[in-house]
Amino acid sequence: MEKYAFKYDELPVYKVAEGVERRLVKTDNLMMVNIEFRDGPTSEPDPFHSHPHEQVCYVVEGEVYLFVGDNEKAHIKAGDKFAIPSGIPHTIQRLTPVVRLIDCFTPIREDFL
Amino acid sequence: MEKYAFKYDELPVYKVAEGVERRLVKTDNLMMVNIEFRDGPTSEPDPFHSHPHEQVCYVVEGEVYLFVGDNEKAHIKAGDKFAIPSGIPHTIQRLTPVVRLIDCFTPIREDFL
Repeated sequence: MEKYAFKYDELPVYKVAEGVERRLVKTDNLMMVNIEFRDGPTSEPDPFHSHPHEQVCYVVEGEVYLFVGDNEKAHIKAGDKFAIPSGIPHTIQRLTPVVRLIDCFTPIREDFL
Repeated sequence: MEKYAFKYDELPVYKVAEGVERRLVKTDNLMMVNIEFRDGPTSEPDPFHSHPHEQVCYVVEGEVYLFVGDNEKAHIKAGDKFAIPSGIPHTIQRLTPVVRLIDCFTPIREDFL
């Protein structure tokens, strides 16, 4: 029987870096990633990156500066969202000790598997 | 200048039913919907529904029973996720007064616009 529900504690944890963990679920073309940063606050933004995948994000906990293209930085916090079209450079800076984000992508981030 | 960051309070609120509100952001093929139910606990599941859109969901607050196809119900709560492939019938029953979900869909739910 196929599994559809995933409890937080039973998802495999992928350690991205010291203090940074990822847990994910997916369908064929859609991926939802719970990313937890415990490395903040960070003194500057991470390097900009971009990807062909479209991305939407919900801030579960903490506060970040969001940088997208040449836009002014946006100060966003728990409950806020952001949306990044395909190919647009973006990054964040963590402003709190813990930041938890729900990132969704289409298509699947094969590089996360 | 295009807008990428959306604070909770500035997103338009769509009232789905008494005590049920939706706030959403999107890119071309990806939609993230913050749905807040303040109608719980509900005494039975909502009617099953299905859609061609793939769906992943994160439970921000509260507890629900998730029903998918003929599977046994799953009891999930804040921090848990679920993933529904295209076309699979599913529904929830709210177990707490407030339930807040982050639902993501690909493609866009045009019926939500």
